[in-house]
Amino acid sequence: MAGDSFGTLFKISNWGESHGKGIGVVVEGCPAGLKLTEEDIQPYLDKRRPGQSSITTRRDEADAVEIMSGTVDGITTGTPLTLFIRNKDQKSKDYSEMAKLYRPSHADYTYQQKYGIRDVAGGGRSSARVTAGHVAAGAVARKVLTQALGVDIFGYVKSVQDLELQTPPEDVNSDLIETNLVRCPEPELAEKMVKKIEAARKAGDSLGGVVECQLRKVPVGLGEPVFDKLEADLAKAMLSINASKGFEIGSGFAGTLMQGSTHNDVFFDDNGSVITKTNYSGGVQGGISNGMPIVFRVAFKPTPTIIREQETVNLEGKDVVFHGRGRHDPCVLPRAVPIVEAMAALVLCDHFLRFRAYKNLFDL
Amino acid sequence: MAGDSFGTLFKISNWGESHGKGIGVVVEGCPAGLKLTEEDIQPYLDKRRPGQSSITTRRDEADAVEIMSGTVDGITTGTPLTLFIRNKDQKSKDYSEMAKLYRPSHADYTYQQKYGIRDVAGGGRSSARVTAGHVAAGAVARKVLTQALGVDIFGYVKSVQDLELQTPPEDVNSDLIETNLVRCPEPELAEKMVKKIEAARKAGDSLGGVVECQLRKVPVGLGEPVFDKLEADLAKAMLSINASKGFEIGSGFAGTLMQGSTHNDVFFDDNGSVITKTNYSGGVQGGISNGMPIVFRVAFKPTPTIIREQETVNLEGKDVVFHGRGRHDPCVLPRAVPIVEAMAALVLCDHFLRFRAYKNLFDL
Amino acid sequence: MAGDSFGTLFKISNWGESHGKGIGVVVEGCPAGLKLTEEDIQPYLDKRRPGQSSITTRRDEADAVEIMSGTVDGITTGTPLTLFIRNKDQKSKDYSEMAKLYRPSHADYTYQQKYGIRDVAGGGRSSARVTAGHVAAGAVARKVLTQALGVDIFGYVKSVQDLELQTPPEDVNSDLIETNLVRCPEPELAEKMVKKIEAARKAGDSLGGVVECQLRKVPVGLGEPVFDKLEADLAKAMLSINASKGFEIGSGFAGTLMQGSTHNDVFFDDNGSVITKTNYSGGVQGGISNGMPIVFRVAFKPTPTIIREQETVNLEGKDVVFHGRGRHDPCVLPRAVPIVEAMAALVLCDHFLRFRAYKNLFDL
Amino acid sequence: MAGDSFGTLFKISNWGESHGKGIGVVVEGCPAGLKLTEEDIQPYLDKRRPGQSSITTRRDEADAVEIMSGTVDGITTGTPLTLFIRNKDQKSKDYSEMAKLYRPSHADYTYQQKYGIRDVAGGGRSSARVTAGHVAAGAVARKVLTQALGVDIFGYVKSVQDLELQTPPEDVNSDLIETNLVRCPEPELAEKMVKKIEAARKAGDSLGGVVECQLRKVPVGLGEPVFDKLEADLAKAMLSINASKGFEIGSGFAGTLMQGSTHNDVFFDDNGSVITKTNYSGGVQGGISNGMPIVFRVAFKPTPTIIREQETVNLEGKDVVFHGRGRHDPCVLPRAVPIVEAMAALVLCDHFLRFRAYKNLFDL
Repeated sequence: MAGDSFGTLFKISNWGESHGKGIGVVVEGCPAGLKLTEEDIQPYLDKRRPGQSSITTRRDEADAVEIMSGTVDGITTGTPLTLFIRNKDQKSKDYSEMAKLYRPSHADYTYQQKYGIRDVAGGGRSSARVTAGHVAAGAVARKVLTQALGVDIFGYVKSVQDLELQTPPEDVNSDLIETNLVRCPEPELAEKMVKKIEAARKAGDSLGGVVECQLRKVPVGLGEPVFDKLEADLAKAMLSINASKGFEIGSGFAGTLMQGSTHNDVFFDDNGSVITKTNYSGGVQGGISNGMPIVFRVAFKPTPTIIREQETVNLEGKDVVFHGRGRHDPCVLPRAVPIVEAMAALVLCDHFLRFRAYKNLFDL
Repeated sequence: MAGDSFGTLFKISNWGESHGKGIGVVVEGCPAGLKLTEEDIQPYLDKRRPGQSSITTRRDEADAVEIMSGTVDGITTGTPLTLFIRNKDQKSKDYSEMAKLYRPSHADYTYQQKYGIRDVAGGGRSSARVTAGHVAAGAVARKVLTQALGVDIFGYVKSVQDLELQTPPEDVNSDLIETNLVRCPEPELAEKMVKKIEAARKAGDSLGGVVECQLRKVPVGLGEPVFDKLEADLAKAMLSINASKGFEIGSGFAGTLMQGSTHNDVFFDDNGSVITKTNYSGGVQGGISNGMPIVFRVAFKPTPTIIREQETVNLEGKDVVFHGRGRHDPCVLPRAVPIVEAMAALVLCDHFLRFRAYKNLFDL
Repeated sequence: MAGDSFGTLFKISNWGESHGKGIGVVVEGCPAGLKLTEEDIQPYLDKRRPGQSSITTRRDEADAVEIMSGTVDGITTGTPLTLFIRNKDQKSKDYSEMAKLYRPSHADYTYQQKYGIRDVAGGGRSSARVTAGHVAAGAVARKVLTQALGVDIFGYVKSVQDLELQTPPEDVNSDLIETNLVRCPEPELAEKMVKKIEAARKAGDSLGGVVECQLRKVPVGLGEPVFDKLEADLAKAMLSINASKGFEIGSGFAGTLMQGSTHNDVFFDDNGSVITKTNYSGGVQGGISNGMPIVFRVAFKPTPTIIREQETVNLEGKDVVFHGRGRHDPCVLPRAVPIVEAMAALVLCDHFLRFRAYKNLFDL
Repeated sequence: MAGDSFGTLFKISNWGESHGKGIGVVVEGCPAGLKLTEEDIQPYLDKRRPGQSSITTRRDEADAVEIMSGTVDGITTGTPLTLFIRNKDQKSKDYSEMAKLYRPSHADYTYQQKYGIRDVAGGGRSSARVTAGHVAAGAVARKVLTQALGVDIFGYVKSVQDLELQTPPEDVNSDLIETNLVRCPEPELAEKMVKKIEAARKAGDSLGGVVECQLRKVPVGLGEPVFDKLEADLAKAMLSINASKGFEIGSGFAGTLMQGSTHNDVFFDDNGSVITKTNYSGGVQGGISNGMPIVFRVAFKPTPTIIREQETVNLEGKDVVFHGRGRHDPCVLPRAVPIVEAMAALVLCDHFLRFRAYKNLFDL
């Protein structure tokens, strides 16, 4: 119960540290018979990895994935898949200053207090580098979902600080997401976002924002009624991503400004299919998918690594000044997109397998 | 994996339906030696139950809890506690119309599709009545936390539609919460909220809003680093509550408008204690409590039960009109407060026990 | 993790004490659409309950089961089934002596040391009375297995002390099991067993023995390869039954006296079906069912409750003499049969649902 | 729920195949602050690995373990430990015959039926090679137990076919176990066992036997009352080991021949300590350790790999003849000893952490 595993029937166990030998993930419960090679996974890692552009951190980690177990001749055997991303770019940085103090809004203080020891180099396990494992496992989940159900998953940057996409979810053109560095499906807005992020970088500062994600063509019936509601598991998945501070589905916080009479999603007969006129529910009702697009948003704080002098305390609890230095990621939003997608795929794949276990066992 | 259990070391299993024999909850993992009788639990159920005031539904369910197992002479024995709340007020309502159609934004459609059968009376298991079990179990968790750690837990209504509390979390006077029907710690604002809810009731409509909750005096070190982050488990707990659509911790969505240089919580030496000047982190860093107050918010949609004519489809998928009737809860916010508190207590108590398992095993 | 739950997809949570309000069990994960009323469950409880005959304890507990949740109009809804067996026959016995000492080979000492408190009346939760919950839940699992797969489950007494059934598993006539009080499928041997048990009762002593159980018509493929092997989960289930001291499958301990060349189960083509000539494997190979009958045995010790003077220590750790008195069960074997069957059904049903989750997802 | 993980608070996830890249194990929940390097683990792997002597298989796999994550400067950080044993000795054997048929009493048939695909080389994941991961993880559990509690764990060969050790558990001299190839603490008997195994090897045949294992200095209170009884978890652990067919604790199957009056373990005051005169309970009462030595036995079948002609069927279900060839392990017993010890250490360490979570929270 140390919290490094996620999921039930499609379960991942994550291990590894920022500056250790690498990041690994064991995927338990991947069905047998899926064609799977490194080529299915690498593109997602390439989307997550640093060093892609002028607005992300300049470390070039390569992040080549290796399948360590679970396939024979490029086909999954139903046994644990282990995916490993060996660490490469480990500048022999001097961590002696960082070892003596707690960086503000990082995990240094809480790790030291909880464990009595912490891995100072690169933040050890508190580094967002562990999400490389999530992305690799998510690629497998995604392939299962695509092949078995045709589910379509896409995330994009909804806002960078006060620059916010106004396009309603149903009108987002997912083909435009990868046309710009910031992964915003509105190219003109994207350009403004890029400029804002570059300005923050120059100032040694950082910015936050919101990622929106959609899951389309999800069948009706995924999710459990009381605790393992689909939105509850999505919320947990999203709040487990580094730097995330909030989650909302469908109408979310803005929906609290509406009234029941306008917020209710009216069902109607759409040529034989039951769909709803609006989608304030965000594709989930009573914890269970209703066949409409699942739409949710995740808030990411401005990253705490900034190139500034900051006050803090040292290991003895005395006030000191910390000088932030080196490479930093002024805005994690573009790189958060593939992580959000991956975690969503993991949740969905898990619920899909849970659904299969019980579905249509007894006719009524 | 049907999702009716929550927690790991302090684990609850919820059962029962809105109009069945009652709602029960099994609490596994309550430590031995805690003094516990029905009197410790009943006050929390009284806060949750309907029929308390002019602004909640008028059903008077009494909701008397009975301890069915797990204590001897008013002391817990370390074995499963079962708490049972027998259903009483079950008006022999005619559900024949509701059996034939799907109410908008309810769980009727998804349950029917998932299971091929649903309990029509009162919504069966999709009813918020199941949260009586959460509140009962939460009362036990709370007593464990209070006695063992002195933790202080309080929630309150932060907003009803556009009426929003402006008091910063650190200035909230928790003594004022119970001074008004709406559980808002600002009496004048509370009065406006009550009026707004009464107007919605008269109009047969409903309102949503936001509950804010604080956990104070939480020790440093609760929560796990990667997936079972304290905020991730809180998010899951909150999104599992009926009608909730969003969760945020600390600065949340508003924090995305800030910059790293102002958002970072600076540590300082407060007469020998390490605390932070601001609390945008919301009491959690790297998934682990840092000793500052844990502050989070939960968005609740306007409840879907309204006294209006609404379009929808019937079991055959054909368009029909549904006439909402009877008692309804125009705003769940006041009654959501004890549910939010209970779920928070359950999460915290679970992480407290997990923390104890590993703490201080080897000296460093 | 207090250990009162068992199973994953078909999961039970047991609660209640020997002399408390009753024994309950929550069944999570029972598929929707199963016809289920108390009449499906009661016959199995009747087989387990005391007071059936001259060779079991004379308490008449009635043990009427009540379905508290999870069905509508006699059909399961896919939500938690709660089964409750209210305690009735609670002679207001004087437990003051028992409260002061530890009965030999009971759980008194270990409970007191672990929890600092114990429920003295009837042994509280350490009583075999908790297995009424197992039997009730097992009846549901059995109905699922029978309807979905046609699985046939039957246990019987293989030995009482040195009186041992010589019939090989494949020749056992399950129709004869219920023809005698001791549930041995060989009537003449059964008569001797009954006499031996009656003699033990008169002497105030107790006897142990072995239950054998067969699961026939189990499909190929149930069980997981490494840790959740079908035999591993059966072993855990059986060793969780009160008074059990051993488990073996197929050839078991006796198989260690053979050689590989005779122990190997040769496959052959039986008119288009692949079966084995012998079944030393006991129906499981590599942790997974192979379609042959699953055959296993469980050893039960002579029950520790005897009507004798026995040395022991009191709560202060001082030597004292304990006078066993009252009703006792001189041999639990006949009543253990339905418990063994129930636990086997629970394991099998759980693995059946796990199998369904992954089966035939991708064609090869 | 694919069954590749074991444990709750001290949890392992096993991955890898016989002839793949290697065997790995992720250990989640190892407490922080333990000194740990490869040198702590390697000796146990050396005991398990093949090629040690004339009576085990001649493959020399080296089995060097590498710690991939979870330590800093040779100290555990409380984050996942990953241990990896790279495969080396993979003779490029021709598996084309084996791919076309099912070896008797192996997992070929069940894997093929369950998954539709199987890893033929070396048996893939059904190979006992996966237990290298168990042994590596068990070494960590053992170090935790030794340092925190001073627990003493030792297993030994109790019997090889009909050659059986007669020494009672309390008189076994653990210093003699490693004095001979067969790991039997009675050197003269060991010599006979070695001769018997060598004869079986020459005959191309195989032998089974029994391993006995003792856990001494276990504190009172480990284990949970109803399902996660200490003996139940040990039983599951042991039946998950390849080729095991039975488990018994304390008096086990032989205890069924006794009577309650002689089988009961009488408590007495041993200079201020409460201990029992006999130990038929095997150190566990009511599922919880009572402070006496925990003594259990595991039956291992004669290994199915023999150098003989055997009848079987091919993939099409037609009768064929299979010619066993190459290296084989005529008796797994000596190599099973470290695996049994490792699994016992894993179970005990898990229950120790579970015990800590609840212990002494409230004074009575």
